[in-house]
Amino acid sequence: MNPLASPLLTDLYQLTMLQTYFAAGMRDTAVFELFVRKLPDNRNFMLAAGLDQALEFLEGMRFGDEELAWVEQSGLFKPDFAGHLAGLRFTGDVHAMPEGTVFFPDEPVLRVVAPMPEAQLVESRLLNLVHFSSVVATKAARSVLVAPGKLLVDFGLRRAHGAEAGLLAARSAYIAGYAGTATVLAGAIYGIPLFGTMAHSFVEAHDDEAGAFIDFARAFPGSTVFLVDTYDTLEGVRKVAALAPKLKREGIAVKGVRLDSGNLAALAKQARAILDAAGLRDSTVFASGNLDEYRMAELLAAGAPIDGFGVGTSLVIAADAPSLDAVYKLQEYAGRPRRKRSAGKATWPGRKQVYRHYARGGGLDHDVVALEDDAQPGEPLLAQVMKGGRRVAGAESLAAMRERAARSLAALPAPIGALDTAPRPYRVEIAPRLRALAEELDRGMAQPLATAP
Amino acid sequence: MNPLASPLLTDLYQLTMLQTYFAAGMRDTAVFELFVRKLPDNRNFMLAAGLDQALEFLEGMRFGDEELAWVEQSGLFKPDFAGHLAGLRFTGDVHAMPEGTVFFPDEPVLRVVAPMPEAQLVESRLLNLVHFSSVVATKAARSVLVAPGKLLVDFGLRRAHGAEAGLLAARSAYIAGYAGTATVLAGAIYGIPLFGTMAHSFVEAHDDEAGAFIDFARAFPGSTVFLVDTYDTLEGVRKVAALAPKLKREGIAVKGVRLDSGNLAALAKQARAILDAAGLRDSTVFASGNLDEYRMAELLAAGAPIDGFGVGTSLVIAADAPSLDAVYKLQEYAGRPRRKRSAGKATWPGRKQVYRHYARGGGLDHDVVALEDDAQPGEPLLAQVMKGGRRVAGAESLAAMRERAARSLAALPAPIGALDTAPRPYRVEIAPRLRALAEELDRGMAQPLATAP
Repeated sequence: MNPLASPLLTDLYQLTMLQTYFAAGMRDTAVFELFVRKLPDNRNFMLAAGLDQALEFLEGMRFGDEELAWVEQSGLFKPDFAGHLAGLRFTGDVHAMPEGTVFFPDEPVLRVVAPMPEAQLVESRLLNLVHFSSVVATKAARSVLVAPGKLLVDFGLRRAHGAEAGLLAARSAYIAGYAGTATVLAGAIYGIPLFGTMAHSFVEAHDDEAGAFIDFARAFPGSTVFLVDTYDTLEGVRKVAALAPKLKREGIAVKGVRLDSGNLAALAKQARAILDAAGLRDSTVFASGNLDEYRMAELLAAGAPIDGFGVGTSLVIAADAPSLDAVYKLQEYAGRPRRKRSAGKATWPGRKQVYRHYARGGGLDHDVVALEDDAQPGEPLLAQVMKGGRRVAGAESLAAMRERAARSLAALPAPIGALDTAPRPYRVEIAPRLRALAEELDRGMAQPLATAP
Repeated sequence: MNPLASPLLTDLYQLTMLQTYFAAGMRDTAVFELFVRKLPDNRNFMLAAGLDQALEFLEGMRFGDEELAWVEQSGLFKPDFAGHLAGLRFTGDVHAMPEGTVFFPDEPVLRVVAPMPEAQLVESRLLNLVHFSSVVATKAARSVLVAPGKLLVDFGLRRAHGAEAGLLAARSAYIAGYAGTATVLAGAIYGIPLFGTMAHSFVEAHDDEAGAFIDFARAFPGSTVFLVDTYDTLEGVRKVAALAPKLKREGIAVKGVRLDSGNLAALAKQARAILDAAGLRDSTVFASGNLDEYRMAELLAAGAPIDGFGVGTSLVIAADAPSLDAVYKLQEYAGRPRRKRSAGKATWPGRKQVYRHYARGGGLDHDVVALEDDAQPGEPLLAQVMKGGRRVAGAESLAAMRERAARSLAALPAPIGALDTAPRPYRVEIAPRLRALAEELDRGMAQPLATAP
């Protein structure tokens, strides 16, 4: 059993509901939409990611022998349940915003239309995949926006929440505009460019720092970025400068130095001066160590001559907003629109499309959320990506997603693309017919609206 | 290739260092220790978890054909590198604190003693596994401490950071004292008890709420906890009360109701009153919806008659402390102790043991960190778990880890076990010989101590 593809990667209630749907013969078509209800205070937009993983999961979704054996011996289900599950495949349609699209609250990023049991079962894993990938893509986009032209690299695997988080974070950051990652398996699986130098332990294992630098340069003559802060940062930079002529005679150029602790702004200026004085004007200064977009913005504002940043923990856990209020909600069943009305959690019913409107200069102006059959002006953001359980086209390249993200981010109005909370959120209108449908559903139901605060 | 077990689940610099170690013949014994440098402001202790996964990774670590093929065609390494990797296994020794042990900053929770290339390569994945599992175990322990005797269930899969995070979070929460999880695959893989009821979509898919409840009760007569807030919470509770006699005639008892939105304290009291008035005194009130340990403490302090809590996002992402300053540092190489002295990141050198001292009443008093060969009074916390690349004993049961965690948590001094930051941190002493060794190393090195702020 591959745990990353198992249909048991779900909440127990999905299986209990499935058994009930089977027992009650409820196999009519259900429409679920995945969207974010509300942005965290420190986010003005989101960047969509994780669709490819979601589609791969849906295409491959089946109960294997091990999973069926577990269902049978778990004692949780009726004897005929495993038989129902054995034949279960995802046969539905999916519409979605492509990865790298900027999106906002109340806008569906993914819609599933499928027989109820199939559509229900996949909720947990679809959210698990799309939520996390979008959380990190959004976090990464913020550093791309504050450090234009800088080389940004994901260093986060060790403090990512498990292996899949490390892999998906590297992928999301790359889509958002990072140059690459240190996570080797992300390079091997997704073809993302890999970056890396050396650790402090490498320097410490050598009896002297210069010896460590020489060993490394000879092994990787094309990747000579030296970690200089194991003992004393500026001494380390001076050693690199002193070694440069010797390395040059061996045909090796010094690519740069990496600072990983201390006052990065001051050290970057001093390191730059030492390198320049040694004639190493082409070598770069790379910084890492507890960085995030706020710190990067500060360093650049302080004029720190830093050419690239390695960002680890804060990126892969999206430290200041590690989750979004992302949900997957039933919007229609058996041809009838549905609406949840729980206090503070009401949803917009029906199958919907999002239309984007641009200002004259090409920037984003506002979006309109409308019922799918209520065509509107503007650019429709959701497109069909799966029909009858199969993708309608091959997987999109990461390069195409990166391009889309770059265009999307460049088109953000300045206050929306800024780190600080925008004075006014981006405008998302609910089309009149959709609003009318919601009111109609509320009136038509027997129960009064929830009034609890 | 199983991505969760791949040795490519590492940072590129581990591989570049490996190539250099191979080229320079640096295969002497290295000693690395995994520890936390500093606690987040809102944590007074940590709970260790993830060791079993770490040992499984070490035992199975090998480069398969796919991985070797990638290394060869990546263009990043010298031609003979893949050959070195093909034969690489983890052959080292591991000492560790068992899972469910409370630990504090500067205390090694895991020590690896192995030839340098092996010990270096596994850094990223060991940290990735032990860091996250301990982050969630610690978070879960805090809710166990504020809600003694309550049924706590992990609901977090959908917003966990990927699949492995969902699985490991369920496991860590169970070790810390949760009753179980909703994540089915965690039940199937680890044998953790599973909990679950129904989703709002289930109620919405039915044309009336009572019909949904009846369908569910007939399918799961033993799990009749009804989700009552889809439309109007108290109306929902009244429907459950009204259905109870009918269900009773079918031999089905109402186990309880689940509240998932609104003012939970007020609704719990009203729901309890409705259930009691209907003679359903044995049925329970279960609450969920954006809960964490702070909110649970408030609800219980307000006298809310809640019997159990479902905790999702805040638990599995450890929202208020989603990472720890956990590191894996070289402490000795080729028989010589090593010390990193980067500004703010200096380490204690050498192989170490942690000794725990208890107060008269059985509570924790203080710990002492000492060199391994400098035996001290107190309870030693690290034990050998792997020798020559093989475990010295079979995997420990989750039940044993839970028991240890329960004992550990019960022994915490009150201010350390409280939600608020303790006025004084728990006392961790550095033994005199260890302190002397660190000073000696500083004096013996050619470079002056780092002076950057």
